[in-house]
Amino acid sequence: MALDEQAKRDFKVVGTRVIRPDGLDKVTGKAAYGADISAPGMLHGRILRSPHAHARIVSINTAAAQALPGVKAIVTSADLATPEDAGYADIAVNCLAKGKVLYDGHAVAAVAATAKSIAKQAIRLIEVVYEELPHVTDVDVAMRPDAPVVLSGRALENVPEGMSENVTMRCAFGHGDLEVGFAKADRIVERSFKTAATHQGYIEPQACLASLGNDGRGEVWCCTQGQYMVRANCAAVLGVEESQLRITASEIGGGFGGKTSTFIEPVALALSRKSGRPVKIVMSRSEVLRATGPTISTSMDVKIGMTKAGRITAARAELRYSGGAYPNETVDMGAQAAFAAYDLEAVETIGWNAMTNRPMEIPYRAPGAPTAIYAVESVVDELSQELGLDPLDVRLMNAARKGTLSSYGPTFNEIGLVATLEAAKAHPHYSAPLGPNQGRGLSCGFWFNFGGNTCVSLNINDDGTVGVVEGNPDIGGSRASISMMAAEELGVPYDKVGTVIADTSSLGFNDITDGSRVTFAVGLATIKAARAAKDEMCRRAAKLWGIDEGAVNWQDGAVVPAGPNAGTHPPMTLAEIAAVASNTGGPIAGHHEVNADGAGVSFGVHLVDTEVDPETGATKILRYTVFQDAGKAVHPDYVEGQMQGGAVQGIGWALNEEYIYGEDGRLQNPIFLDYRIPVASDLPEIETVILEIPNPGHPYGVRGVGETPIVPPLAAISNAVSRAAGVRMTELPMSPPRLLKAMTG
Amino acid sequence: MALDEQAKRDFKVVGTRVIRPDGLDKVTGKAAYGADISAPGMLHGRILRSPHAHARIVSINTAAAQALPGVKAIVTSADLATPEDAGYADIAVNCLAKGKVLYDGHAVAAVAATAKSIAKQAIRLIEVVYEELPHVTDVDVAMRPDAPVVLSGRALENVPEGMSENVTMRCAFGHGDLEVGFAKADRIVERSFKTAATHQGYIEPQACLASLGNDGRGEVWCCTQGQYMVRANCAAVLGVEESQLRITASEIGGGFGGKTSTFIEPVALALSRKSGRPVKIVMSRSEVLRATGPTISTSMDVKIGMTKAGRITAARAELRYSGGAYPNETVDMGAQAAFAAYDLEAVETIGWNAMTNRPMEIPYRAPGAPTAIYAVESVVDELSQELGLDPLDVRLMNAARKGTLSSYGPTFNEIGLVATLEAAKAHPHYSAPLGPNQGRGLSCGFWFNFGGNTCVSLNINDDGTVGVVEGNPDIGGSRASISMMAAEELGVPYDKVGTVIADTSSLGFNDITDGSRVTFAVGLATIKAARAAKDEMCRRAAKLWGIDEGAVNWQDGAVVPAGPNAGTHPPMTLAEIAAVASNTGGPIAGHHEVNADGAGVSFGVHLVDTEVDPETGATKILRYTVFQDAGKAVHPDYVEGQMQGGAVQGIGWALNEEYIYGEDGRLQNPIFLDYRIPVASDLPEIETVILEIPNPGHPYGVRGVGETPIVPPLAAISNAVSRAAGVRMTELPMSPPRLLKAMTG
Repeated sequence: MALDEQAKRDFKVVGTRVIRPDGLDKVTGKAAYGADISAPGMLHGRILRSPHAHARIVSINTAAAQALPGVKAIVTSADLATPEDAGYADIAVNCLAKGKVLYDGHAVAAVAATAKSIAKQAIRLIEVVYEELPHVTDVDVAMRPDAPVVLSGRALENVPEGMSENVTMRCAFGHGDLEVGFAKADRIVERSFKTAATHQGYIEPQACLASLGNDGRGEVWCCTQGQYMVRANCAAVLGVEESQLRITASEIGGGFGGKTSTFIEPVALALSRKSGRPVKIVMSRSEVLRATGPTISTSMDVKIGMTKAGRITAARAELRYSGGAYPNETVDMGAQAAFAAYDLEAVETIGWNAMTNRPMEIPYRAPGAPTAIYAVESVVDELSQELGLDPLDVRLMNAARKGTLSSYGPTFNEIGLVATLEAAKAHPHYSAPLGPNQGRGLSCGFWFNFGGNTCVSLNINDDGTVGVVEGNPDIGGSRASISMMAAEELGVPYDKVGTVIADTSSLGFNDITDGSRVTFAVGLATIKAARAAKDEMCRRAAKLWGIDEGAVNWQDGAVVPAGPNAGTHPPMTLAEIAAVASNTGGPIAGHHEVNADGAGVSFGVHLVDTEVDPETGATKILRYTVFQDAGKAVHPDYVEGQMQGGAVQGIGWALNEEYIYGEDGRLQNPIFLDYRIPVASDLPEIETVILEIPNPGHPYGVRGVGETPIVPPLAAISNAVSRAAGVRMTELPMSPPRLLKAMTG
Repeated sequence: MALDEQAKRDFKVVGTRVIRPDGLDKVTGKAAYGADISAPGMLHGRILRSPHAHARIVSINTAAAQALPGVKAIVTSADLATPEDAGYADIAVNCLAKGKVLYDGHAVAAVAATAKSIAKQAIRLIEVVYEELPHVTDVDVAMRPDAPVVLSGRALENVPEGMSENVTMRCAFGHGDLEVGFAKADRIVERSFKTAATHQGYIEPQACLASLGNDGRGEVWCCTQGQYMVRANCAAVLGVEESQLRITASEIGGGFGGKTSTFIEPVALALSRKSGRPVKIVMSRSEVLRATGPTISTSMDVKIGMTKAGRITAARAELRYSGGAYPNETVDMGAQAAFAAYDLEAVETIGWNAMTNRPMEIPYRAPGAPTAIYAVESVVDELSQELGLDPLDVRLMNAARKGTLSSYGPTFNEIGLVATLEAAKAHPHYSAPLGPNQGRGLSCGFWFNFGGNTCVSLNINDDGTVGVVEGNPDIGGSRASISMMAAEELGVPYDKVGTVIADTSSLGFNDITDGSRVTFAVGLATIKAARAAKDEMCRRAAKLWGIDEGAVNWQDGAVVPAGPNAGTHPPMTLAEIAAVASNTGGPIAGHHEVNADGAGVSFGVHLVDTEVDPETGATKILRYTVFQDAGKAVHPDYVEGQMQGGAVQGIGWALNEEYIYGEDGRLQNPIFLDYRIPVASDLPEIETVILEIPNPGHPYGVRGVGETPIVPPLAAISNAVSRAAGVRMTELPMSPPRLLKAMTG
């Protein structure tokens, strides 16, 4: 698709900062989240979780719990189906452990009772006999041949000698001759890095209300990034059909990728099927941290060669990711992203995944990329520093641009990396003076951006207002941006358009809200649906006028007679056509179903100043500026919010957040007091600079925005801290004890 | 549209008696009705109602109520908009009285409080000063020039001399020369009739949960026959836009036409807007009877002339209906329906509506027709009896058939009246012997059947199941019948299809569930949407095979290469195409929007045996058989259920149900103990005979079924009672005191 003519003209609605449609309900407390819906006769579900990192389940005795008055159902893995598909089978086993528990917090059984207190009491009465097994939580240890095997029979085909059965994946990307490249280098740096698993840290714990009958018909209300994903998972895990399940996504109190899988919905459905009553489950914060998706934990080696002038001659990375207790492919995206910002002659990235006794990894904004790019950008910075080069000039010199053969295969189209780097260089932040114990860091960031399966219906109401139906939970303002694109295309004010998120039974399949796909793909489908509706309105007006439908044009929100008919009738507005629709054939709608491509990759540059306290090892973020190519920014407030939010989450990842496992393999910090996410007092105002390089794959030039901003902070902060502290940091988080130890040797 | 080829072949799914999809939830209590949803922070609304039939509102003092702890909002008509459109303006005034109250039970003010008990207490603290006005509840009295005027300024233009300003409508239908016709008659009978207003008597009182912000965005969950109607009414009454309101229809515990308007939803929204909280209102049975739609009350004159052989020579009816306190047009349908069963040379029907101090009439199954046809069929029976003719033969001799110029204008297409009469004549019931005090009655019935605005979307899920999205609340089994038609068309088992009722924001506009339109119009749109999906699946398969999309056929649920490509590939089933949809372009759907016509009129004949107790005047229904042309009966169980249900409601109307007003104009029987609907012990098993004369306006030959069955019972029972009691009855209900009085002189 070529960039639309419209994208070149002035927009009327797109690009403005309209009032968000969900704002009032959210600030007044009326918005309904996952836990906010109840049903008559509803039971409360609660889940019993493993206290062991790895153990065989010898027996489960539910008799005492079952005998407790008020207990209406107890389920174990025996109450779930055994999906043939390995991915669904893993989800089933993760919902309720089968045979053995794979990590601390793994669900073992669940109870539904007439009161929360009874459910709580009942799970204590369930007697589980475990036989403890050796465990492994570190990815490097897990790859060793003598490591305890988390899941047998899931190893990569032909595991290399010297590696464990825990290794489930190997991937490789790159081109050119590394040996030749490194030989050309004036300086080579080779470093190893480690990063801890972090959690998405959304405010709202998972919650759902579910109902399922013995006839296989059911409903779920839940907090999710993808109601169709919930439907597919539940259908597979319960052994029912998709057409018989109706899943409604609630408002969502944050997701960041963490709500792209199911933990409690299949359990609630199983409890409902057994009890004959609706069942609500609301997770506690501890359950969220122990048993829902943290990121991968990593161990990485990066080697880069550079000329004195700053040109990279060769680059290699080896990434070892653990995606927790199941086979996981996140390393594939990390390996592709690692060197995406560079135009390289010789590059290679190898990725490995190994299973550990940790919870199943679930995506977290740009999954796999922040860690890989952290390692790469740390080495680029170190080389720049050692060679006495401006680190920004080094990036500019090596930057990928239109026509670059990327490190992961495709050749880039229009991309905004150079423009973003130049904006950073020109910004006052880059030349501001620094004080003692202060350091400035920068990093590039990259994300692919997805398109994907998308359905949109657009209805013209008889009062001249417009309804858009989309199927992606609004986690980043999509109801506003989609309404804006519909209003733009139809030539009506923004206030006339209402966009809703349909349940799974009310609209065709949509991929989850992920990959920064929604504003791009749903926007594209909305524009196409609006165009279909405009064509239909042209036909209706032509019919009313008794002229050929080809002899009219759509112009400024109205149908106008054209050609030989020009001037024969006054323009007929959308509202006028809508008012008489039932006389011209019936309701007017436009629909579009597509597996969208052309999402357009995204680049950003983050600039950060830090001050390190040499006595405590504490890092203060002094100043932070985000530069990003957003394509056409539909609603700049939301774009800036995404850029700020990504930076803040990256600050947490860089400085404090981590999953801390004890020797016993149990998570030691499953509460927000101990798992430390940034709070307001940790943060400066995050400055933002939006660049708008239109994406030729979208009629308005839109590209994904939401994920790229979490990619650069890890490296940018590590580089700033390394320069401030005078010691090159290679492990995250750079918590005060770790930094102090590095500084004091 | 011509009857589809498919309608002539054997159906695989249509015509079978599959399990209903809503059955399990309804019998286990899980189905969610209007009152079954709650929201956090929800308030309880309660309505203060007029104790007067007609009064000026001098003042409303809410200070004491407002001061009651827990009271969060009080609204009066001042909190509603004043719609320009007269119909919406009447709805607004009916929701909350403005200036004066028009009937006993008219809403005056409403309170939202934190508990039901507080709301109840609060409405008692509202001080309303009324100035009582003279009232009128009888239609004949209301038409007199000296009658109290219910609403001034609403009279028919040019009210005839000698009539009141209460007269809001006159209509006339017919053809031929009456004078000539009556002159040819051997016998003329002229009679006057009266019928009492009755109520739809649904089990579930109106209930809703509503939320509206100051930004004009709102949601309503409610029990209704039309969520789009609720949206339009609420938008008009609250002064907000349709695209900003999302209305979801709950399961419905009966409607029968009575849930085709709004009483509490706008009030709950106004309370929510004022309080900033969601508000639930649930009506009591008394409120339902006092303030929601009963039928018209009537007074009618019928004059028919007949030859000795039984041929009708001329027929005339004058109908005076009162649709309550507002202008009403139900008499128009009554006047059209009155003589629809007959092929007449000279016929005239005049209809009048007059306002009375009664609640606003709301449709009740075949609105206007049962009373008009009661009067006509009573006179036809009396003439038959007097001339010693078989009443069924008289109907057959005069029956409308294909080509008949109907009494209301159109010429009939394929209709089933003669077939239905012949089936009745051949049935053992018609010749069964009768005992003392027993009488047999029969009557023809007729309903127009509607089409109307309809949107359907049909989605092919990736697991090979199918989802149908329709917008009409399922009051008569439409989820089953629509799934069946989709399954039939797509060649998949019924179990693979799920049909849901969308909220107003998830699907384009649909007319309400009324006029027996849903199985016809939604079915038609579903078949069209399925065909669009099949066309798309043909394109996808052709694309996969790399052959021209014209070179494939759809056959038995699969795409098959055809013509020169025949045999080159094995057939690809719907499930196989669905599984790879994302590789061939994205999700697969079919959509259809239409203002459907061609619904096809419907006729039925009811046969009833009664026994009258000469000492008490009590009537027992001994045997009851319904014959009806259903077109193609999609799900015979539901068709039979409609036929039985209509008969039972007609029995209530004929024998016991009535609105009884006191001298003070107040309703004296607003509870089910005093308003007597039939109970199981009042009824025999209602026998049913379905005739299937395909409707050429529908691809499968379907026609509406639900309304016709309530049309014949009034006359059939009156005729049976008249013959059993030996006295011609002319007023409904024929309650024991009234019948006893007639019998004893």
